[in-house]
Amino acid sequence: MKIGVLGSGQLGRMLALSAYPLGHQMRFLALSEDEPSSLLGKTFIHNNNPEILKNFADSSDIVTYESENTDVTIVNKINQNTKVYPSDKSLYISQHRGREKALLDKLKIPCAPYQMVNSLDDLKRAIKSIGIPSILKTATDGYDGKGQFLIKSEIQLYEAWENMSGVESILEGFINFKRELSLIAVRGIDGSLAYYPLVENSHHEGILRLTIAPAQNISESLQKRAEGYMSSLLNEIKHVGVLTIELFESDSGLLVNEIAPRVHNSGHWTIEGAQTSQFENHIRAITESPLGQTTSTKKFSAMINIIGVHGPIQKALKTKSAHLHLYDKEERTGRKLGHITITSNSIDDLNQSIDNLKEYLP
Amino acid sequence: MKIGVLGSGQLGRMLALSAYPLGHQMRFLALSEDEPSSLLGKTFIHNNNPEILKNFADSSDIVTYESENTDVTIVNKINQNTKVYPSDKSLYISQHRGREKALLDKLKIPCAPYQMVNSLDDLKRAIKSIGIPSILKTATDGYDGKGQFLIKSEIQLYEAWENMSGVESILEGFINFKRELSLIAVRGIDGSLAYYPLVENSHHEGILRLTIAPAQNISESLQKRAEGYMSSLLNEIKHVGVLTIELFESDSGLLVNEIAPRVHNSGHWTIEGAQTSQFENHIRAITESPLGQTTSTKKFSAMINIIGVHGPIQKALKTKSAHLHLYDKEERTGRKLGHITITSNSIDDLNQSIDNLKEYLP
Repeated sequence: MKIGVLGSGQLGRMLALSAYPLGHQMRFLALSEDEPSSLLGKTFIHNNNPEILKNFADSSDIVTYESENTDVTIVNKINQNTKVYPSDKSLYISQHRGREKALLDKLKIPCAPYQMVNSLDDLKRAIKSIGIPSILKTATDGYDGKGQFLIKSEIQLYEAWENMSGVESILEGFINFKRELSLIAVRGIDGSLAYYPLVENSHHEGILRLTIAPAQNISESLQKRAEGYMSSLLNEIKHVGVLTIELFESDSGLLVNEIAPRVHNSGHWTIEGAQTSQFENHIRAITESPLGQTTSTKKFSAMINIIGVHGPIQKALKTKSAHLHLYDKEERTGRKLGHITITSNSIDDLNQSIDNLKEYLP
Repeated sequence: MKIGVLGSGQLGRMLALSAYPLGHQMRFLALSEDEPSSLLGKTFIHNNNPEILKNFADSSDIVTYESENTDVTIVNKINQNTKVYPSDKSLYISQHRGREKALLDKLKIPCAPYQMVNSLDDLKRAIKSIGIPSILKTATDGYDGKGQFLIKSEIQLYEAWENMSGVESILEGFINFKRELSLIAVRGIDGSLAYYPLVENSHHEGILRLTIAPAQNISESLQKRAEGYMSSLLNEIKHVGVLTIELFESDSGLLVNEIAPRVHNSGHWTIEGAQTSQFENHIRAITESPLGQTTSTKKFSAMINIIGVHGPIQKALKTKSAHLHLYDKEERTGRKLGHITITSNSIDDLNQSIDNLKEYLP
């Protein structure tokens, strides 16, 4: 099939690398001809010319997107003639923290306490009910920790609200979590489901730096509980493709933090670490093919992000059981330039390889 | 780096799929815009316009080729300004069976008895010394069993020679082999070497259908002997990149049948079956990067070719531990359209999956 991707970043790039072996062809709606996916299919430069959008859609049998910040009006326009998976519903919910939380409430999936905030007065009221510390976040457009303000004291309320630049926001209770986990799953058009194991994520300055897969010391019942939340969500929105939920493991149990209706940085380890990668399973789902096995290929995997600078690439190429994945992006502070996956049946070997690459970790 | 490939078939396609994660970009010198690699980089259509060849070479930091049938004069032209790996020497030797055998003789590597044949009289003389059965092959341009004639009786000599259409040929003694093996290795610019395990290949009508990796019941000394032949060859021609030798295991020991100065169909299993695939290692070698580990990821791998028709693709997608690799080619009798790799730590599981895909086997 001809698969169109709205966006042409590293996620589109890795979707392409897994789609070609399945016999598909790729098209990208891009902002320029110098993006991570540009050489991996036909690129249509999106310059607000409706003709370009039409050509992109007409040249695709099916369209998907790589970001929850994708413009829903574009999705709806394409949807008139070309199927878009996941649907606009997945996008509509996940691009607004308020709608996301409302869905979690509806499905009785635990999450942090929250209140919507549209003014400083709202914020003052919300703080009274939610307490301190808490986090004020823009309702839309946040990623990698951007658009967030941690409120540690009531004297910060004005500053916090100023920081939101007046846009609709949400105040969330601060969760004193033990660790951050994520669960990635895929749902086929026929409703079939497949789950990857819970993984443990370490962030620094809001950016994911390290994922360990599977997360260690996870009971079967915890994995099942997370899968239960996932299946409720996937089935409620009739999601087609991969979906990711970020979770906090806390004293009060497992809390859902965020939903991403797409392949996710914390699932990059699956390229080598799982029988079928998240990228291949997303492609399988949206092309109405059977889902692939999500079993791990090795007992342990680790994924280290390459952030800002490329660092000691030759060393990465020499590190035992390591796989390099670069995105062909220019170096820039805080930018995701690539990642390295390490897979091993020995936790000692895994840790030794991680240690060997410690220059990549904060 | 910008890597140019002379050719744009499935080997170029799989080289591209392994080159992008390492941060490289691809260019292809192709015959048309509708080839397996066409969407995976910048394609230059080779229409004997020297300007096109120049543009292709100028846009590449390094050039490689995907076939031993590549025109040496083109390689030499490119080589004036852009490095080509493997060098013209690897190409010059491997594209002529006579030169190949002479090199094997020089390095004391065992192979079938042979004589060059340029006329029916030559053939008659050669048959006297080599005996029957024997195989008459064109000295150049043969692949997948094409350009070969099995001589079982002296009355076939005229027919056999007619079959060669008067081109330079070679008569080789027929080896009553137990099985066909191949060895794939890679040599870096610094002379570093890495070997994959010997694999067992099953052909049908001259076309590879099944590879089992590693070949079963191979003693360590046999593997070492094959590696010894390989290192002699690689070092003698100062090869850079992947090289494949096809071998016969016979009562008189291991005999080298053919040399291919490139990634090889019998190494496709390495995409999932080895820590570093033959494609990635070729790219590492020609870009002067450290070679990757060639250790197997699972105890057993199998590679089944998809020949002529695509067959039950949905079944392939559902088969346990199977990975699909399609080349985006139209169906045609005898054509390689893709392959399926199965990897497992259990020989029973492996065999069950092969059995599940038996419609792909002759």
